Amino acid sequence: MMQLYPVGVVKQWNEKADYPGNTMQIHIHDEFSAGLKGVENCEHLWILFWMHKLSEEDREKLQVHPRGDVTKEKRGVFALRSPMRPNPIGLTRVRLIKRDRNILIVEGLDAFDESPVIDIKPG
Amino acid sequence: MMQLYPVGVVKQWNEKADYPGNTMQIHIHDEFSAGLKGVENCEHLWILFWMHKLSEEDREKLQVHPRGDVTKEKRGVFALRSPMRPNPIGLTRVRLIKRDRNILIVEGLDAFDESPVIDIKPG
Repeated sequence: MMQLYPVGVVKQWNEKADYPGNTMQIHIHDEFSAGLKGVENCEHLWILFWMHKLSEEDREKLQVHPRGDVTKEKRGVFALRSPMRPNPIGLTRVRLIKRDRNILIVEGLDAFDESPVIDIKPG
Repeated sequence: MMQLYPVGVVKQWNEKADYPGNTMQIHIHDEFSAGLKGVENCEHLWILFWMHKLSEEDREKLQVHPRGDVTKEKRGVFALRSPMRPNPIGLTRVRLIKRDRNILIVEGLDAFDESPVIDIKPG
């Protein structure tokens, strides 16, 4: 039984932000914030998150057109970065811009607002 | 509810092997083998696996000594590559040596024999 717990959540900026461009926030839930000790010294991080917008049917697709381009032959999801896959875990290497208590401001995260965060590893 | 399904399993070599050194096998379960189509064209792969030797107590540790060295101050698990973490997902970039039907022979995988494989992404 492989059950995941959300350790945090991705947040997009509202309207006016001090950090524009390609940045997002990761809010680590209070009960996991002790796990952040020292993370401010990491220039880059791997973020593992749950692609929560996918349906159970999306998890059953094993072959898809690369980038949804129907002129290209279908390939296996393990040979593609498609979000369709049996276990919809997103993986992005980001640059850590700033840590503010239990909030990380990161650049380059390929996630949606409200995506549950599963793990953070130095990278 | 974030529930993972094993798509395969890591296998160490038995005794005499044609592929010695730092290689291991990944056996993809039959029902997911369609997802491998085209994977043979990937030189490197990211392997996500479940660190199945960890206990539920290990998942509760949020700060540990780096590399178990007690002379070093404890740091948060999100700032370390320690296997102790709330969601024990291992992440390794490997070189694909060979695909033989639903078996991948890979170099550099930092997993144990029988670790469940969760996802494979081109890398």
